[in-house]
Amino acid sequence: MTAGKTLQELADHLGGQVTGDPSLCITGLGTLDNASEGQITFLANPRYAAKVETTRASAVVLPPTADTFGRNAIVVANPYLAFAKLLMLFTRQPHLARGIMAGANVDKGAVIGQQATVYPGAYIAEGVRIGDRVTIHPNVTLYAGVVLGDDVTLHAGVSVREGCRLGNRVTIHNGTVIGSDGFGYAPDGTAWFKIPQIGIVIIEDDVEIGANTTVDRAALEVTRIGRGTKIDNLVQIAHNCTIGEDCMVVAQAGIAGSVTLGRHVVLGGQVAIVDHVVIGDNAMISGQSGVFNTVAAGAVLSGTPAIQHQSRLKSAAVFPHLPEMRKTLAKLGGRLSKVEERLEPISA
Amino acid sequence: MTAGKTLQELADHLGGQVTGDPSLCITGLGTLDNASEGQITFLANPRYAAKVETTRASAVVLPPTADTFGRNAIVVANPYLAFAKLLMLFTRQPHLARGIMAGANVDKGAVIGQQATVYPGAYIAEGVRIGDRVTIHPNVTLYAGVVLGDDVTLHAGVSVREGCRLGNRVTIHNGTVIGSDGFGYAPDGTAWFKIPQIGIVIIEDDVEIGANTTVDRAALEVTRIGRGTKIDNLVQIAHNCTIGEDCMVVAQAGIAGSVTLGRHVVLGGQVAIVDHVVIGDNAMISGQSGVFNTVAAGAVLSGTPAIQHQSRLKSAAVFPHLPEMRKTLAKLGGRLSKVEERLEPISA
Amino acid sequence: MTAGKTLQELADHLGGQVTGDPSLCITGLGTLDNASEGQITFLANPRYAAKVETTRASAVVLPPTADTFGRNAIVVANPYLAFAKLLMLFTRQPHLARGIMAGANVDKGAVIGQQATVYPGAYIAEGVRIGDRVTIHPNVTLYAGVVLGDDVTLHAGVSVREGCRLGNRVTIHNGTVIGSDGFGYAPDGTAWFKIPQIGIVIIEDDVEIGANTTVDRAALEVTRIGRGTKIDNLVQIAHNCTIGEDCMVVAQAGIAGSVTLGRHVVLGGQVAIVDHVVIGDNAMISGQSGVFNTVAAGAVLSGTPAIQHQSRLKSAAVFPHLPEMRKTLAKLGGRLSKVEERLEPISA
Repeated sequence: MTAGKTLQELADHLGGQVTGDPSLCITGLGTLDNASEGQITFLANPRYAAKVETTRASAVVLPPTADTFGRNAIVVANPYLAFAKLLMLFTRQPHLARGIMAGANVDKGAVIGQQATVYPGAYIAEGVRIGDRVTIHPNVTLYAGVVLGDDVTLHAGVSVREGCRLGNRVTIHNGTVIGSDGFGYAPDGTAWFKIPQIGIVIIEDDVEIGANTTVDRAALEVTRIGRGTKIDNLVQIAHNCTIGEDCMVVAQAGIAGSVTLGRHVVLGGQVAIVDHVVIGDNAMISGQSGVFNTVAAGAVLSGTPAIQHQSRLKSAAVFPHLPEMRKTLAKLGGRLSKVEERLEPISA
Repeated sequence: MTAGKTLQELADHLGGQVTGDPSLCITGLGTLDNASEGQITFLANPRYAAKVETTRASAVVLPPTADTFGRNAIVVANPYLAFAKLLMLFTRQPHLARGIMAGANVDKGAVIGQQATVYPGAYIAEGVRIGDRVTIHPNVTLYAGVVLGDDVTLHAGVSVREGCRLGNRVTIHNGTVIGSDGFGYAPDGTAWFKIPQIGIVIIEDDVEIGANTTVDRAALEVTRIGRGTKIDNLVQIAHNCTIGEDCMVVAQAGIAGSVTLGRHVVLGGQVAIVDHVVIGDNAMISGQSGVFNTVAAGAVLSGTPAIQHQSRLKSAAVFPHLPEMRKTLAKLGGRLSKVEERLEPISA
Repeated sequence: MTAGKTLQELADHLGGQVTGDPSLCITGLGTLDNASEGQITFLANPRYAAKVETTRASAVVLPPTADTFGRNAIVVANPYLAFAKLLMLFTRQPHLARGIMAGANVDKGAVIGQQATVYPGAYIAEGVRIGDRVTIHPNVTLYAGVVLGDDVTLHAGVSVREGCRLGNRVTIHNGTVIGSDGFGYAPDGTAWFKIPQIGIVIIEDDVEIGANTTVDRAALEVTRIGRGTKIDNLVQIAHNCTIGEDCMVVAQAGIAGSVTLGRHVVLGGQVAIVDHVVIGDNAMISGQSGVFNTVAAGAVLSGTPAIQHQSRLKSAAVFPHLPEMRKTLAKLGGRLSKVEERLEPISA
């Protein structure tokens, strides 16, 4: 927590302009509906513009187009981003280094950096190397040879399997598994012969991964999650995938083996990507879609199989009319046959 | 386990009527196919009515409409519910209080109620407050400030994150995560700026949650699971959702941010609900459906985008005929053009 | 790891034929693109046949139809299977028995076989019986009465609930839950009355299960996973299912209660199977499909509701044309009406 800041200090932090009293002291944040005196709030959705007049907040972060209703305000291009920055400013906890706590199980061959916290019940195997200011929560398991960068946080119940490597400032939420075996079997008549999965997972800097997600190790080489990518809960990323930088993968999406995502790709919730597909930069795939083929950069797709999103919306709107269309088609056929019969003698 | 009960005692417990010998001693339960002498079974599905005559069970729980075939029976309005009550009666284990076991890691600032069990490998942080008769299985992690009511059971591997609150008689199965960060990022040019998730999760009384499910903490306020709601395995509930009372959410369903479910809503398996949607009381959403808009109370929807279930079944039945419809349409066009050509000279 | 083998030794191991120098020493494996001298690679996909000429590998495993380009080679019917066998040969680690390590919590009433490893943070309850050469990774929890066969590996964070039984050579990856309660509630007016789940899970020999998957215990009897079946990550298998032998269930598939899968059934990713459905031997269900009815042996289905895969592909190809079809239908109706009007006076 931080003590109060003046409206001018906050505007400087955000690169915005003050309207009203620059010396006003702000001590916290709230929503338009729930903020109280001394707090600052924000308007991101123009639909709620009228609430700027009535909010109990002492100041509002606004876009240039919005009416200030005479309130104290900071005007910025992107109020949502500004609010995120203020939240970070007011709520960021300082790093707490508790050391290797009693009840933690750390192999003597592991190397732990400065200012670490390793909670009880965590297990760190031989050959693990860990950077500075890392927090390993209870019941985390790091298998042999794992490497973690600086400022990594692994929440309770996370497993990182043999030899996988995480960069700096990586955060992984509870129960997520990094480096489980890829799902690879060769058919041998009726049974399945396991293909040993001897590759690893590399997670680059500034990646955040949600809870109970799974990222499988490569069969031979590397499953890679690119810098800055954010992955939600219960996502499946199969062996040998290459996920580009700054992608966003929403909950319960599933990415099959050897898929390549470009930069800044967005996958909606429950999307499925078939193996070996390549998805271009900035593509967006709508929730529940199934992608079977290469996706061009910038494409916006939806449905299974995924097609242009706008096209799919139009077809989906027709879908409820299918029974009536089928009946109409049959009737038209009947009417046309009658017309043809009537014409028969005429043309005869 | 309970010793034997007479048929009359069981009928009184269920609010049903005995047919046959009220003093018959029943010592357990079984299915129509597998029950043995001394056991009671039940008929819920009229399809199996004939098995009442041949089952080796000593008695049968039946609806008023069923033929008893002269067997000893208890007649009740809802045999399925009655059987659940009998199962509970015959199989409920008494609460076992083993205390804080060796190998459990409990911060000295945590407050634990009476008759608790805390298994080895569980971690309970500072500021946690726990009610009476609570069972914390191995390798559970309770972060700082968590509050649990009475008669709570948390199975192995559950995590409850900072400050989250669970009511009385809440049961959470293995590996489920309560209070992981919501998936909130503000776009900052090409990268994603994290929006701190500083709210909590509140789980009300009598909620049961399955295994490996994730419930994210609110960005600012509360993600709430209403009293009596039952949630299956591998479900995703995003930040700021409000789930009403007595809802049922089947496995692998995903509920995006700020969704509101009314009372007694049923979501089928793998359903997806888009963010900010409101779903009315008693609505039912069929498995794999995708809901993009407000749902009226009592509606029964299916498909993606979800429409009235009956309408969708009819359209789905037409779907396999699409190729033939398209051909027919082209042929009709051709035939009609010929007719028009023939009429040309007539009308000319 | 193994030392080098001659090409002839490898061919004998695979049941293949050497082309070139049988005494060539091979020390490892690589892909067509990345193998180096001394390594062997393989050609499974004919698309890459030209790479056989240019790979830096010293030998190639090839199908009989492929051009050897004069390279040292082993010719086999199934190069993919052969490569899996070579990988296993070159990379299999010998079993390491570390015993019950300090920090493991093993109830004195548990029975552990020979050459076991039980890592710190694992909990093994009363009445558990474990075979020989078993590896229990950190933070695994085995509830009372669990039985494990020989050569079982349970990765970190796995839970096996009360009384469940695993056969020989079963491997379960991190965070997976075996034997959580089935999702069974009887409606009692508006609330849900829990149906006690007192059955178990039985997992037969040679089953492998991925990470963060859930297999629920039966209500009364047994949820069974058949010998040799392979299950991927984040899969849901509900209570009372019977999964046949040598099935393959891809990530995020969900199988509802009391479903029966025959032998060698393949379910794609995110498939959903409705409760009580029976699926015949060798059936294949395409990813994201929803199955509502009995599936015949050998059927290949896709879509929701699932239909013949080929039929569904054809209908899906028509789907984007629906808006244009609807317009055409309306136009044809208009044109036909005009024709009918013109014919009116003629036939009158």
